[in-house]
Amino acid sequence: MAKNSLGREIPAVWRGRSLDPYMDPWSRQPEVLRATRPLVRCRPGDSKLLPSLRVAIEMCELKNGMNISTHHALRNGDVLLNMLVKELDVMGLRDIGIASSSVHAVNAEIIPYIRKGVITRIETGVNGLIAELVSKGELDCPIVVRSHGGRARSLATGEVEVDAAFLAAPCCDITGNLNGVYGPSACGSLGYALTDARYAKKVIAVTDNLVRFPAAPISIGQSEVDYVVQIDSLGDPNKIVSTTTRLARDPAALLIARYATEVIEASGLLKDGFSFQTGAGGTSLAVADLIHRKMAAGKIKGSFGCGGITGYFVDMLEQGYFETLFDVQCFDLKAVESLRRNPGHREISASLYANPYNRGEVVNMLDCVILGATEVDVDFNVNVNTESSGYLLHNTGGHCDAAAGAKLAIVVAPSMRGRLPIVRDAVTTITTPGETVDVIVTERGICVADKHVDLKKELLRRKLPLKDIRQFHEEITRITGVPRAVEFEDEVVALIEYRDGSIIDVVRRVRE
Amino acid sequence: MAKNSLGREIPAVWRGRSLDPYMDPWSRQPEVLRATRPLVRCRPGDSKLLPSLRVAIEMCELKNGMNISTHHALRNGDVLLNMLVKELDVMGLRDIGIASSSVHAVNAEIIPYIRKGVITRIETGVNGLIAELVSKGELDCPIVVRSHGGRARSLATGEVEVDAAFLAAPCCDITGNLNGVYGPSACGSLGYALTDARYAKKVIAVTDNLVRFPAAPISIGQSEVDYVVQIDSLGDPNKIVSTTTRLARDPAALLIARYATEVIEASGLLKDGFSFQTGAGGTSLAVADLIHRKMAAGKIKGSFGCGGITGYFVDMLEQGYFETLFDVQCFDLKAVESLRRNPGHREISASLYANPYNRGEVVNMLDCVILGATEVDVDFNVNVNTESSGYLLHNTGGHCDAAAGAKLAIVVAPSMRGRLPIVRDAVTTITTPGETVDVIVTERGICVADKHVDLKKELLRRKLPLKDIRQFHEEITRITGVPRAVEFEDEVVALIEYRDGSIIDVVRRVRE
Repeated sequence: MAKNSLGREIPAVWRGRSLDPYMDPWSRQPEVLRATRPLVRCRPGDSKLLPSLRVAIEMCELKNGMNISTHHALRNGDVLLNMLVKELDVMGLRDIGIASSSVHAVNAEIIPYIRKGVITRIETGVNGLIAELVSKGELDCPIVVRSHGGRARSLATGEVEVDAAFLAAPCCDITGNLNGVYGPSACGSLGYALTDARYAKKVIAVTDNLVRFPAAPISIGQSEVDYVVQIDSLGDPNKIVSTTTRLARDPAALLIARYATEVIEASGLLKDGFSFQTGAGGTSLAVADLIHRKMAAGKIKGSFGCGGITGYFVDMLEQGYFETLFDVQCFDLKAVESLRRNPGHREISASLYANPYNRGEVVNMLDCVILGATEVDVDFNVNVNTESSGYLLHNTGGHCDAAAGAKLAIVVAPSMRGRLPIVRDAVTTITTPGETVDVIVTERGICVADKHVDLKKELLRRKLPLKDIRQFHEEITRITGVPRAVEFEDEVVALIEYRDGSIIDVVRRVRE
Repeated sequence: MAKNSLGREIPAVWRGRSLDPYMDPWSRQPEVLRATRPLVRCRPGDSKLLPSLRVAIEMCELKNGMNISTHHALRNGDVLLNMLVKELDVMGLRDIGIASSSVHAVNAEIIPYIRKGVITRIETGVNGLIAELVSKGELDCPIVVRSHGGRARSLATGEVEVDAAFLAAPCCDITGNLNGVYGPSACGSLGYALTDARYAKKVIAVTDNLVRFPAAPISIGQSEVDYVVQIDSLGDPNKIVSTTTRLARDPAALLIARYATEVIEASGLLKDGFSFQTGAGGTSLAVADLIHRKMAAGKIKGSFGCGGITGYFVDMLEQGYFETLFDVQCFDLKAVESLRRNPGHREISASLYANPYNRGEVVNMLDCVILGATEVDVDFNVNVNTESSGYLLHNTGGHCDAAAGAKLAIVVAPSMRGRLPIVRDAVTTITTPGETVDVIVTERGICVADKHVDLKKELLRRKLPLKDIRQFHEEITRITGVPRAVEFEDEVVALIEYRDGSIIDVVRRVRE
């Protein structure tokens, strides 16, 4: 057991893996060669089409102890991972790891198969019940939470070996050329799957929409795909992407959005060439909306928007406020339609988006990102993984990636949730290190990292409620009271891996 | 020394390399893992921009004995390879291998540097004087001739290690995102460079058109590029692509084109879903033109055209006779413009196009390809590398790749050139094995491989001049006389590598 540079206790070894404690966001360097895989050969006339998932699992020679992956671009509409796990069980396979790009609430269906030993570990962030049960010690299934960039890194370095990647393919031909923009299960960008297609030992395209060769556009090409399986349905279209994403309406959120917009303006970054990322949360979208208006008023021509893409960013592209959208995942239908239609709307891989171990990721070119938080602390560390209950409930997503890359990483959050203060003395779990977070914006005050002296002056000049974070912490805590500390057992049930593979925090079992 | 399956004498070892004699087009299998390279890391604010090629060579830590590469999409307008070789000399580097995708006539400028020992080997096909001098024994520079697919394979397997790839980038930003469709040196598809970007140990984008981030479209992304160098000019735009490619006008060539078109029609392949490749030679283009008319007359909707793309194929795309063009290289300006504009016109890598060691190359889906020849023989073997003089003068290009992939590989050639018969008892050099060649079309007769019984019947029914190839050989030789056999020394100056890496033939020094 050793403390990492943020003071978190990290075991030397966990479940057989030696852990490197987190040091800082920048200095860890790749020391390995890029992961490889066997080369294979296809001849003219060879068929890749297999009759069922079962046969595909057999053809991949999947064995006990191996890892499978899926991508999560179908979100809560996805049924593929559940189908696969049931099939693994029927086939008698055990001790399989899930190395998908994310596990969503819809995948709670696999809980019985975790109990049964079919699935024994999850090499990715988990949203929802599975993670909660693991936190409570009710489910024995170690979880390694990785960011989008960190997951791409783990595949590129070979730290995580995906033995078979089952890629939901909304539009696919018999050779495995595929895309996500057409078909009943259209999800838009296949940014996460692109990384699996490049590194997985075997790649199986699973489609409910087998089209005439060549499927077009080609997001993943036939030269990366081993087999093609046709199934009735990849999932529920209504849950795959939102019909629309909506901006916040409550006054507190709108005030936060207004403050955040003023911070961006005060930073001097909002000028020609501006680049921007927001998530799909209501407050983030409200910031996007206000920035859009500011750009229109100031005739500012931005450069790019990136990350998960919403209709708000599509409007900004189509009206000329962005030249390019770098899209790793579509958040709503308007984004899917735009990816079909707009040449400036570009699908990119999770690796090009955010993998720290390549020759330059897109997030490094970001001016500003708007991020969420379940908690922040007086050192600007941010938690998005656990709730104040101590339960692991959320994936990291691109949080720590975009924070590290952007010139200005702004966290927007209400100053309190229920009776709990957003600012803590120390966050329950560190997702993103304070060193990469620049500003925290709440409806009651704005806290700016010490290094931004000019920004602080400008906010004061603009008469915005700039507050010292420690004083702000006291101010909020006076209202909410000091929250009861969550008590934990010693047992570590999950790792929070920083994007570079070091361990920034662990999640311990909650004492009930 | 052992004979390969086509009877060619192949040394067991050549210049330190153990050679595998060619067996057949299909059975050789990859036995290695995909080539890898070190992972690196870039931080926000890191600059990739270097002031000169010299500094780039230094940053790559290029040493004596290493390999460099360029791509040949700038064809005879390219000046980058010449500039690089001169710089290597000034820096005192020696024993460097050229592993470019092709070496063109314009590169004859490097001959003094071969004599000087700066360049000691060429790991690719060579068009022109360098190859001729090597054939004559006047230049000591072993050459390994590889097809486009074979070269991609050799990089993917690691048989050829590119230590530094210098990629001419007609449109590039400071992070290394780049494309070939904009700028004064626009060449269109960067299909060959895509493979280098994936496998070279270091990747340097060299541009005469540094644009604002992000360069768009992104053919090669920043995550693959180590450094960016800006130079005044990548070359002569007038020689980079032809203004237009033109179809043949002489009656013999037009007759050949008409016969070839009738063969395609007779084969039954010319129906909805038809896929097609031709080169940019006048006869090939005349076939494309006739096929276009047939498709229009028959309201036939084809699937795709592939290979090097010309304006003739662009017309067919735009008029709906192809759904897709798979473009590994643009042959004329109209193709470059189309690649900018038409979503159905898709840039693909040499690996996706033709590498036999991946999960399925595009050529495997070809119905028909039209190929050229300097000689064919009574076993349908084809030579495009050497002339009847015995000199090595031409690269293989995609010849053997497309022949292996297509259902119907048609060679078009005049029955004699000057006083030399096109059909030989045995070709001087085997580029493409007869097993993968289906039909040879000349203005005096059409020869069809024995296995195509139905096609022969149909050609007879159509009263086309079907001839047995041995009888046709005699017929032509009666006119031309038996050509004087070229005499060779024992010394092997070049290998003709089949697409799978086995040695299908060697080129020996011509006895002067």
